[in-house]
Amino acid sequence: VSAAPAEPARVLVVGAGLVGTSIGLGLRPGGTDVLLADASPTVAAVAADLGAGRRAPAPDEAGADDEPDLVVVAAPPDVTARLVAEHLRRWPRAVVTDVASTKQAVVAEVLRLAGDDAGRYVGGHPMAGRERSGPMAARGDLFVGRPWVLTPVEGTRVASKALVREAATRLGAVVVELDPASHDEAVALVSHLPQVAASLVAARLVGAPASAVALAGQGLRDVTRIAASDPVLWAQILAGNAAPLARQLRLVRDDLDRAVAALEQVAAGDVPAADRRPGEGEQDAPAGRSPVGTLARLVADGNAGRAVVPGKHGDAPAVYATVPVLVPDRPGALAALIGVIGEIGVNIEDLRIEHSPGRLTGVAEVAVVPSARDHLVGELRGRGWSVPD
Amino acid sequence: VSAAPAEPARVLVVGAGLVGTSIGLGLRPGGTDVLLADASPTVAAVAADLGAGRRAPAPDEAGADDEPDLVVVAAPPDVTARLVAEHLRRWPRAVVTDVASTKQAVVAEVLRLAGDDAGRYVGGHPMAGRERSGPMAARGDLFVGRPWVLTPVEGTRVASKALVREAATRLGAVVVELDPASHDEAVALVSHLPQVAASLVAARLVGAPASAVALAGQGLRDVTRIAASDPVLWAQILAGNAAPLARQLRLVRDDLDRAVAALEQVAAGDVPAADRRPGEGEQDAPAGRSPVGTLARLVADGNAGRAVVPGKHGDAPAVYATVPVLVPDRPGALAALIGVIGEIGVNIEDLRIEHSPGRLTGVAEVAVVPSARDHLVGELRGRGWSVPD
Repeated sequence: VSAAPAEPARVLVVGAGLVGTSIGLGLRPGGTDVLLADASPTVAAVAADLGAGRRAPAPDEAGADDEPDLVVVAAPPDVTARLVAEHLRRWPRAVVTDVASTKQAVVAEVLRLAGDDAGRYVGGHPMAGRERSGPMAARGDLFVGRPWVLTPVEGTRVASKALVREAATRLGAVVVELDPASHDEAVALVSHLPQVAASLVAARLVGAPASAVALAGQGLRDVTRIAASDPVLWAQILAGNAAPLARQLRLVRDDLDRAVAALEQVAAGDVPAADRRPGEGEQDAPAGRSPVGTLARLVADGNAGRAVVPGKHGDAPAVYATVPVLVPDRPGALAALIGVIGEIGVNIEDLRIEHSPGRLTGVAEVAVVPSARDHLVGELRGRGWSVPD
Repeated sequence: VSAAPAEPARVLVVGAGLVGTSIGLGLRPGGTDVLLADASPTVAAVAADLGAGRRAPAPDEAGADDEPDLVVVAAPPDVTARLVAEHLRRWPRAVVTDVASTKQAVVAEVLRLAGDDAGRYVGGHPMAGRERSGPMAARGDLFVGRPWVLTPVEGTRVASKALVREAATRLGAVVVELDPASHDEAVALVSHLPQVAASLVAARLVGAPASAVALAGQGLRDVTRIAASDPVLWAQILAGNAAPLARQLRLVRDDLDRAVAALEQVAAGDVPAADRRPGEGEQDAPAGRSPVGTLARLVADGNAGRAVVPGKHGDAPAVYATVPVLVPDRPGALAALIGVIGEIGVNIEDLRIEHSPGRLTGVAEVAVVPSARDHLVGELRGRGWSVPD
């Protein structure tokens, strides 16, 4: 085991785009010496000007004070493995990691290129990004609360993994370990599939009548937000995860085919759609479903899937029961409610208030552990609070 | 031309769900007398409690003071036409409109059912909604800055249209006129297609490994947000617009087929994907494209489509200032914070808490009037509360 330090004192970031520059911005305030390299000197200069670190000297000019403990390759996916191998060779005491968004191909290529040096390599993927790219979009808090996947393999040194873990943790990320194949299956589902879906929907808007597009609302905006992503970068990312992504997309196509067939049946007048709703319980029935039932089933499946999407800070959304309570919109009313809930002896896990201009009352949505729900509802009603069903 | 008033003084809302209750909440402050009817007396009572209006008397108990100038049918799509015709008959001096999200079928059915009375009917569709339904989700500002489509036809009276336009304008909406067929094509594209896409993606998450779903980020959250919509309601909406929606979905399927074929080619090793990027300008080339070029083209088309999506306009400016406060995750901590803010003498306009398992502190986001912000921050810090910059 090498004597890698517990904390990286000097980090070389190779590739000063969104992710690389954000790493520099995030590490600098903790006192880390960050060196920035980029194929484009202009990009490296911009990142340095932003405060992400100092520009790395050319290899032949590097002194002892420029030797990194940790190299983070944050370059495009198609050059990542080559750059990782190059820096493993150049810095024989450094740990090298990368941030490429697919891992099986990159890890295999590094093992092939780097031989024995590969023990100092730890595959990585911070699950953070923005639909904008480049150093100007960087943020020091880009990784706060976000998963950072490490994909160590059999020959990976324990101390190397510990060093990368420490750096990711200092950036506020939550480190998760997965094998490269499981990682790629996971990102096909939670990252690449949504990207393709957003692009497919947005692509339909090209050439649409202005009067139609003018009707767009928050739903379309949300579904298509990530469709603004960089085409060349994303073509590489998607192609880099071709097999797992194709599997997901074929499943989507099956569901889509069923939806189209159901709609065509309705459109052909085979079903008096306007006169009927999906039958009682039909959205749960496994087969023999009406066209409208097929559509309801798709939306219901979407409900179920949406329910497992973690909330903003990684909290599971379904852990708590929500009790809605009407709260008059005047000073003290909310404090009174909170006080009463405290008297009842129930802990408030989360609280959301919504009110709007013109409304006489707000709605407080009180999240509590499910076992406390019924007790709370009963007690609140008993004390005169309005708790709708 | 009938002597319809320029402004509706009394509005009967039929169906006190999200849209109906929001209409009541939005019209009341301007002095409109709003009557609320619903198939469920409980729902009507909740809407009235929220301040959306008064409960409509039973038809045989309605007096002269209960006769509406305008009836807004805000009921599920499959009963809309019948209710419109019924209210046209019941109130021979009233204008009747609806809010159903598809218009061709509803308008045709009203014309068929209502005969001469149909001149007082104006089809409508406010382009506003939430992924939650029911009166509790209603907001008086739901329509502010949103398009409100009217679909008058040849026999529609000018004065009737003017009255509905006035009501929609008072709710802050931007009135747009379209013929029913153009409306349905437009909403297939900007509303129903994104809904299906969100459901298709979210449905893939059912049964996915927890380690995969845990990697989800804002992209997946945004793409699937509207997948939380009500299945029975949405099955009706989608089936009610079957032909235009099927057309859009077939085009999506064509693009999806191309993406799957490209990925399968890459996965089969026909293309050294990791070694190459889409060729120079290839994302714009019409044909003869490499698999990676096909993927880049899809994302580039998505860029172009995304660019035409209108921004969030007409939104009320951020009325409140938000003060984030760290709150230890233990019983009583939140109550203590609320109590302290009360002592400081600042009214809490809105409150949001976010925390996650494993975190020692939550963050309460306290919304206050901007003029109170600095005072509150100073007082809280002075009392030992942690208020990050």
